[in-house]
Amino acid sequence: MGDADIGLIGLAVMGQNLVLNMADHGYRVAVFNRTTSKVERFIAGPAAGKRVLGTHSIEQLVGALQRPRRLMLMVKAGEVVDALIQSLLPHLESGDIIIDGGNSLYIDSTRRTRELAQRGILFLGAGVSGGEEGARHGPAIMPGGNVQAWPLVQPLLQSIAAQVDGVPCCQWVGDDGAGHYVKMVHNGIEYGDMQLICEAYSLLRHGLGMDVDEVQAVFERWNHGVLDSYLIEITADILRRKDSDGSPLVDKILDSAGQKGTGKWTAADALELGVPLTLITEAVFSRFLSAMKHERLRASAILHGPEGRFAGERDTYIAHIHDALYAAKMASYAQGYMLMREAAGAYGWQLNYGGIALIWRGGCIIRSKFLNNIEQAFSRQPDLQNLLLDEYFRGQVEAAAPGWRRAVMLAVELGIPVPACSAALSFYDGYRSARLPADLLQAQRDYFGAHGYERVDRPRGDYFHTDWSGDGSEVSSGTYNA
Amino acid sequence: MGDADIGLIGLAVMGQNLVLNMADHGYRVAVFNRTTSKVERFIAGPAAGKRVLGTHSIEQLVGALQRPRRLMLMVKAGEVVDALIQSLLPHLESGDIIIDGGNSLYIDSTRRTRELAQRGILFLGAGVSGGEEGARHGPAIMPGGNVQAWPLVQPLLQSIAAQVDGVPCCQWVGDDGAGHYVKMVHNGIEYGDMQLICEAYSLLRHGLGMDVDEVQAVFERWNHGVLDSYLIEITADILRRKDSDGSPLVDKILDSAGQKGTGKWTAADALELGVPLTLITEAVFSRFLSAMKHERLRASAILHGPEGRFAGERDTYIAHIHDALYAAKMASYAQGYMLMREAAGAYGWQLNYGGIALIWRGGCIIRSKFLNNIEQAFSRQPDLQNLLLDEYFRGQVEAAAPGWRRAVMLAVELGIPVPACSAALSFYDGYRSARLPADLLQAQRDYFGAHGYERVDRPRGDYFHTDWSGDGSEVSSGTYNA
Repeated sequence: MGDADIGLIGLAVMGQNLVLNMADHGYRVAVFNRTTSKVERFIAGPAAGKRVLGTHSIEQLVGALQRPRRLMLMVKAGEVVDALIQSLLPHLESGDIIIDGGNSLYIDSTRRTRELAQRGILFLGAGVSGGEEGARHGPAIMPGGNVQAWPLVQPLLQSIAAQVDGVPCCQWVGDDGAGHYVKMVHNGIEYGDMQLICEAYSLLRHGLGMDVDEVQAVFERWNHGVLDSYLIEITADILRRKDSDGSPLVDKILDSAGQKGTGKWTAADALELGVPLTLITEAVFSRFLSAMKHERLRASAILHGPEGRFAGERDTYIAHIHDALYAAKMASYAQGYMLMREAAGAYGWQLNYGGIALIWRGGCIIRSKFLNNIEQAFSRQPDLQNLLLDEYFRGQVEAAAPGWRRAVMLAVELGIPVPACSAALSFYDGYRSARLPADLLQAQRDYFGAHGYERVDRPRGDYFHTDWSGDGSEVSSGTYNA
Repeated sequence: MGDADIGLIGLAVMGQNLVLNMADHGYRVAVFNRTTSKVERFIAGPAAGKRVLGTHSIEQLVGALQRPRRLMLMVKAGEVVDALIQSLLPHLESGDIIIDGGNSLYIDSTRRTRELAQRGILFLGAGVSGGEEGARHGPAIMPGGNVQAWPLVQPLLQSIAAQVDGVPCCQWVGDDGAGHYVKMVHNGIEYGDMQLICEAYSLLRHGLGMDVDEVQAVFERWNHGVLDSYLIEITADILRRKDSDGSPLVDKILDSAGQKGTGKWTAADALELGVPLTLITEAVFSRFLSAMKHERLRASAILHGPEGRFAGERDTYIAHIHDALYAAKMASYAQGYMLMREAAGAYGWQLNYGGIALIWRGGCIIRSKFLNNIEQAFSRQPDLQNLLLDEYFRGQVEAAAPGWRRAVMLAVELGIPVPACSAALSFYDGYRSARLPADLLQAQRDYFGAHGYERVDRPRGDYFHTDWSGDGSEVSSGTYNA
């Protein structure tokens, strides 16, 4: 038996940086990588002089660890994780802990938690956010799975996590795949935040006709207010950067966005759970549309837009665009929390919503001051039904709404696409509608499919059917699940 | 061996009506239902005097059929279909045909086509649309699966289908699950069409302040122009209908919409295939939001909207709302066809896009004059990349776009949610954008995740990385799949 505190498998950049982070916090880390030359290079390179032990086989790695053994996997999500777990199992014993720190689908983490529990192994699916920098100096960590493992890894994980106001950005999330679920929603929200910033940038640049330096100054200023966040900060950095010819580098970058799947997983789960997660879904679709560069070029030569130019007061509209970004962001987080609440009910998790905001305040890509307000909202009212109903947020969104409307109207008038920002506004207006035209829609469904409808003047669950196309006024009723 | 032309299993209303339809066209139909009392009631009731033979077991049903046997299943999608197929198999022989006319998921139809082919049974997954009325008097039928079965069922299926200008609304769709896939997209488009009508209704009623009778007259008029369609027609019927107290029945209907899954399947598949199917997805989300009636009531008391009232010229805005509905509908069908094209590529189908428009022209819920124009577009140019690039449609959408913008701006200003209509406009503006702000988004991804970006002045596939946060201007490049 060795004396290493933890073993880590997978020495890509995220894995390497987590190891260095653990070593900096006084932990002895044993490492292994399938391509063992990577172990050598890591030990001789970035890990030189640190308490990191290179190993050359699973057996050697496991043998280097204290009991109960703690093993963290930083490998590609999917079958690789299952194969690795299988190769570990013969060397482990009851009470040992496996932490999957990759971007696994929550369903896989739920399955692994349950399968491994039957063999006495404690599994954690822990989403890690923050990219390379976060992993090295303090990521946000979203651990879920077998709660028995939590006390045994809490000090280590909390010490390497980002700290905000002395609180680690690593809190217990929930059973089974809850940790990876919350990481997935984090990534979805990240998609939304990025898309909203791009839309604001586009409106400032192409709507108000500002040059990149002017837009840069706006984002820099915005980073000192309610929008203060990592993504606004890096946007200001990006817009400052010039290419070798002195022109803005952003203009040299191809406008064709990639994606790695977690955004679309979030949208797909919302569809499955019946949650109107419109903003994140539009952000995912926007990436798809951006990737159709060749077809867009063709279409742009054929389909002409409005000829009008912006004729308003520039500073007024900069403020409107600020408010649009802020309000849409509130709607997006409200939708994300709606999804987590629904998932908790559907999958049987007890989620700590305020705790999730605490995790996200630092280390991760969506970190922002804004998350303090979310945490406070759930502190005030742990059973808060919706962020938009919180006293702070409802005041903020109502105050921002007039500018939000003006910004969307300007975009529509000038033909500048703001899909996420306008989807959020439609959602907001729908959410605060006591009555939606779904009454007509239910009538249509009853007309052609006899699906039945409920009435506003009768109890829920009583279904009525009208013979719409007939001359008579026959109406039948029944109680059934239409 | 019997002499019946076809056997049908499942005597719910759709099954019953298809049988009567077949009998009216001279076919001898043997029928079976798991609850056999339904067989008795059907034979003694609706089928009395027709050439319909009731049977009381699978064995008896199969024995009543000519060879090769043709069996149509009209049962609940899912495991019931598989179980039924299993119970049929011992009684069938090579060359017999099973047609699944239910709302099966296309993946199941692909699996069944392949599994049954190995046993010599020819399987067809045929989506049937048109509700009860369509089934009785002529539905749209979307057959796919084992093409060897097609000549053996074509005369029967085409004779019972709706006919438009002498062309049956039943054409071969494609291999495997292609028939059910196209049916799924049909249903998704139906979701979109219905939502757009509801949004137009809401704008007329609550935006322009019209009463139900006035709105009814508008829909009646719209049904004699480019919007001429079944759904506009039934909307006019619905708005005409009064409740027993003389007030409009639509106002008594609860605005909480249900759904049966095909809309969300369509949206989920678009996410999977990378297609920006924004309008249908917003229509699905709108149903979800409508179903949150209790929470909306609460929110409506807390979150206040704009105080402004409509002050424009009513007839002008009625025309704008017409154009918005029409243009958004074009965008929706363009998106639906984008999805089918992508699916054909991904799943290996040869889809006849013009033929699909021919099927949808009659019998089904989305039937409309508009589908003639789509069929003509694909006749002119079978390899048309996108409906919006067709010479007819681009003229139509450009002409409607100014009104579309005005209608969305009015909705935004007054706080009336038009999620599908505005999502379509954002899509349209994005689609015709040579440049989208995804350049900034790619820079963000490269900043925090080193995902790399392509450049507008370098070949596609060359990826660059910038050390954004560093002081230096280090840039590295490589060719990899980021």
